[in-house]
Order: sequence, then structure tokens, then C-alpha cells
Amino acid sequence: MSGPKDFNQICPIPIGQYPQVTLAHGGGGKLMHQLIERMFTPAFSNPLLSARHDGATFSVNGARLAFTTDSYVVSPLFFPGGDIGLLAVNGTVNDLAMCGARPLYLSAGFILEEGLPMETLWSVVKSMRCAADEARVQLVTGDTKVVDKGKGDGIFINTAGVGVIEHDLSISPASVRPGDVVLLSGDLGRHGIAIMAEREGLAFESAIESDCAPLGDLVMRLIDSKIEILCMRDLTRGGLASALVEIAEAAKVQIRIDENSIPVREDVRGACEILGFDPLYLANEGRFVAFIADSDADRALDILRSHPLGEGSCLIGKVTNDSSPAVVMRSRIGAMRIVDMLSGEQLPRIC
Amino acid sequence: MSGPKDFNQICPIPIGQYPQVTLAHGGGGKLMHQLIERMFTPAFSNPLLSARHDGATFSVNGARLAFTTDSYVVSPLFFPGGDIGLLAVNGTVNDLAMCGARPLYLSAGFILEEGLPMETLWSVVKSMRCAADEARVQLVTGDTKVVDKGKGDGIFINTAGVGVIEHDLSISPASVRPGDVVLLSGDLGRHGIAIMAEREGLAFESAIESDCAPLGDLVMRLIDSKIEILCMRDLTRGGLASALVEIAEAAKVQIRIDENSIPVREDVRGACEILGFDPLYLANEGRFVAFIADSDADRALDILRSHPLGEGSCLIGKVTNDSSPAVVMRSRIGAMRIVDMLSGEQLPRIC
Repeated sequence: MSGPKDFNQICPIPIGQYPQVTLAHGGGGKLMHQLIERMFTPAFSNPLLSARHDGATFSVNGARLAFTTDSYVVSPLFFPGGDIGLLAVNGTVNDLAMCGARPLYLSAGFILEEGLPMETLWSVVKSMRCAADEARVQLVTGDTKVVDKGKGDGIFINTAGVGVIEHDLSISPASVRPGDVVLLSGDLGRHGIAIMAEREGLAFESAIESDCAPLGDLVMRLIDSKIEILCMRDLTRGGLASALVEIAEAAKVQIRIDENSIPVREDVRGACEILGFDPLYLANEGRFVAFIADSDADRALDILRSHPLGEGSCLIGKVTNDSSPAVVMRSRIGAMRIVDMLSGEQLPRIC
Repeated sequence: MSGPKDFNQICPIPIGQYPQVTLAHGGGGKLMHQLIERMFTPAFSNPLLSARHDGATFSVNGARLAFTTDSYVVSPLFFPGGDIGLLAVNGTVNDLAMCGARPLYLSAGFILEEGLPMETLWSVVKSMRCAADEARVQLVTGDTKVVDKGKGDGIFINTAGVGVIEHDLSISPASVRPGDVVLLSGDLGRHGIAIMAEREGLAFESAIESDCAPLGDLVMRLIDSKIEILCMRDLTRGGLASALVEIAEAAKVQIRIDENSIPVREDVRGACEILGFDPLYLANEGRFVAFIADSDADRALDILRSHPLGEGSCLIGKVTNDSSPAVVMRSRIGAMRIVDMLSGEQLPRIC
């Protein structure tokens, strides 16, 4: 299917199975994937969207640009280590960085619920400004809508971002090749646990704070050092597992990772055991994986580790030329297992 | 106030008066203006935002670009002449056009409410694709979030857009000068009435359809014909009145208009009388005003009228060098009156 000429056809999502949108359709797992692959990508069919990247990249009058968007509906609005405003700025900054772009300009679209305390809005706005300063981007255009009480949930924020690409790398899932190594920029799971703890009123010995942070600077250091980057992906909804499965499918490669090499803080691991979560699927807001040419692996790790946001970087796996696209993990006890996307919804409204 | 250093200060909106966000804060009138002027513009302070334009314009590596965003929360989702998807594409296309940019690429951020019928989403997605084709833009990047039932309202859509500026005009409120003429591209009020009629279940003799349409092509014809355009503004929330008041304030000029020259269809006028609305304040989604050099007025009108979306174009007023910034209208019975922004909320969730 490739455009309006086919638009009289029936809804491409199996209605018998999913007559209605469920929370899992926004959860970063299999159902969201299905919605994107079967409905959005064919309906809006164009090569840029089909690249299945964190954003679109294109040239305008000789300037190479990246363009991306995300809406933020996190609940609660404030959580240990951040708030929806910080998330809305860093999330879009990070998507631009994942395209290999230097983040420049953001837009902000607010959907406010009638009755929202004005002080709450002000706190979020201040947080966005501070985050923009830290990430060295400017919020240059915006929009505000208000919906009736009971038709929203305090604040939803959409940010879109424009960045500039100033190198010749082709950073995209399609560039990943057998032999490339997989680097992870630090420990997993803090954002997801911070949100869940706040939501459920759980108290841990020491507060687990979100890892929310802007990754532009860290990525620019890799690029400026001429590291051969094939692909990058930040590990938000769906976590490390979903990001790797998406890339394996898009690049048609097998990715082998080693669970022992994946850093998870002890308190996060403990919280996961109590709550029944797998850190591989938890959302992060300041972590990414980079697919790097094997020959550049050590140098890339040195660069990442020399930055405060990449101190815990490590090599977690390798791309192989095994037959079928998949992610295969050697578990902590040495068994091999296929890593799949989540089928249901683990943590709704995590970002 | 100019940045984070002042961020310990109290909320800049008078809490005694407005402790909470009201529907009017999103309505395009005085309260929305206050929220933007007192909170958003100072908090995010930068020259691009302060231009008070429909979007931001900037250069990246020699390419002149426009960037804009809007969220759409219209209720109901479907109305005579359109739906939220058509609105979301055309609205952002039109904001780019108002910056004098050729619209190129859009992003789409969906916030879906759990339980939304999948068929409804599919209808909206199809509509967006058709609208994008008509406006000759591509939807190149997107995001989907789902919120719990009762925390949203079916579908909210944010679109952001990137366009290219390929001329040397400086199209901005600040460019407007005494002597410029004010052109209006057609009749007023159909979008507002179409929404209200659908919402309230009103039946008119013949259905009044929204004027929702993409203005990029019409605007590009003016630009390609080297018409000296000083400023443009599409007449959405707040209608013609609010657009003119905003421009008069930003440009520090007086704008004089003649009510007799402003086209309003008889059925729209009748509906306004029944519902107690003033067509000057009604939202439109396919109408704009252009401030044009007096010497180009006739030629500009000819160009506008030769396009199906500008057939009803007319000259409605002039910029004068009278002392105080204001919009002054000669009414249909010949009296002069000051046109102000709305203080309350006339039509919530019109777009």
C-alpha cells in the first residue's frame, strides 16, 4: 500500500483483535510497533519515514538537517530527578543527537487541563528553560491549548526539534553491518524505577533518581573525534531490548549481547525484583547504544567514559552475520536466549 | 527578566486573579496573550520567540528556514468540511506560509485516549495523508502516546513544520509601516460556526462547512510575483480582530478597517446572530490577512482573486501613523470603534 489511492481499504490493524486503542499501543513494545508499521508508515509512506530512525534527516538548500518530535504525557508530572519539562527538552534533544545532529532549536506545544495550578505550569516552564540552557538549544516557537477539566491530565507537552548534521556519516539502522560493536553509555533502568516508585508511593533506602540528561554533547564528542558511528538509539520506552530488536529488524542483522556486561545498579536491580520488571525493558532518559566500527571501539569507549554522562560506558555486544534478524543474549548464568519486544504494557505513561 | 538567573522569582501570572489555568488561557484572547507575554516569552527569552510571529525563522548553514508548531484538540473530531487530521496538517502548513516559507516537512505527535476506536484513528490518519498530498508536504517523523481512559479526549495531535524561505522579504509584524494596506483573503467565520453547529447539534438550511484549506500555494504566488509583503497572519483562534490587535501592538501602528468591506456569508451572519457571536472573533482555518505595500495592492488583489482559495479577497483597511497602537473600525452604520481582543472565552477547543 502506498498512498491515498488505497485509502478506501479497511483499517490495517486487525479490528477483531484490537477494535480500540490500548495503553500498550503507546508502550514501545509489539503493539506500538504494529501500529507504526501497519498504519502510520504505509499511510504517510515516504522514504524518510521508512528509515525507522529517531527522526528524519534531509537537506534543504545544501544544509543537512534532522527533524524529530515527541509528546510527553508522563505521570506524575514531577518525579525524583526531573519533571515533564526536563523530559520534554532532553527527550527531543536526545532524538536529534541520535540522528548525529547538533540540536539547535525546539518548539513547545502545551496541552493544559483547565484547573491546572498556575504555579505548576510555572515550575515546568522554568525547568524547560534550564534544560534548554544546559543542552544549548533555544525554544523558539510554541503553542498553548487548554482542554476542559477531565479531558486531559494536568500538562501534556509536545516538543519538536531541528538540528544540523555537520559530518558525512550515514547514521541509520540500515548502516549497521556484521562485525560492528554495540556500546552502551551507562547503567540501565533508573528512569523507569523513579517513575514507578513515585507513582506507587514506594520508598527505597536511597531515592532512585531518573537518569534524564541531554546527550548532544556526548554524541558530538564521538563525531568530532571521527569515530565511525553506524547507528545510535536512546533507550526510552521499551528500553534496551526494544531498541536492539528494532535495529536488528531494520538492519536485518543478528545482535549478540552479554547480560553480564550490562550495568544495572544494585538498588535498581532490587526494585526490579520487587516490582517484577526486567531492566532490559525499563525506560531510560539519558542512556543510548551506539553501533561502532570494531576498529574504533576502544577509542569510542575512552571518549564516552571521559564525559560525566558516559562514565559507565561499556561494550555489551556485537553484530554477527548469523542467518535470521534477532537479538540473542547470553544470560548471567550462561544460557543463550532470544530477546523480544514486550507484547503487553509494562509501564504506561513513563515519558 | 531574561533567563534562569531570575527563576527563583514568583509566578509571573497574578495568582490572586488566576490561580488556575482556565479555558480562556487557550482561547486566543487577552488571557492567552497574557500567558504568552508574561510567562512563556520571558522564560524562554530569545530574539526569535520575541518576534511574535506564527513561527520562528532562522538560517542554518546558509539555508533560511521557518519552524512552527501547533497542537490540535478540536471537539468534535469530525465536523462539516473537515476533521482534526485535516486541521492538523493545514494549520501548520498555514503557519509556515504566514512566515513566507514554502512548507516542506511535518512531524505528527499523537496523544490517543485508551479506548479510542481504531477505525476513528484510521479515518484521521487517512485525512492527514490526503491533506499532506494536497499541501505538497511530507509527514516525515512522528510519535504516539496513549493515556488512560478519562485522561484525554479521543485524539490530540501536534504537528510541527519546517519550511524554506527563498526570497529576501522580511515578513514579520515589525515590518509593518504606516501606509501599508490590509488585504483579507475571503469571507470570515465558517470554521467557527461549523464547529459550534456540530457541537450544539444545530441545523441550518444548508450546512455551513469549515473553510479549512492549505494556504501555501496562494502565498507562494504572491511571493513569486514579487509583491512586497510586510506581514501575514492566518485568522485562527481569536479571528480577524485578535490577529490585527496583535500586529498593531507588535508593530506599534494603528490599523484602520472598514466593517462594510469585510465579507461574511449571509448564513454565517445569521448563525452569529442566533448564537451571539461576532464574526470578527470567529476562528477561520483557510483565511489570512496580508499587509502589503500600497503600490502593490491592486496587483496583489488580482493574484489572490485568481486562486480558488482567494476568490473573495478584498482590501479591508490601511495602516496609519496615528499616535497609539490600536485597531479602529468604521462600523456598518458609520461609527468608529476600537477593536480589542476578547477578554473571556468565546469558543473553546475550536482547533
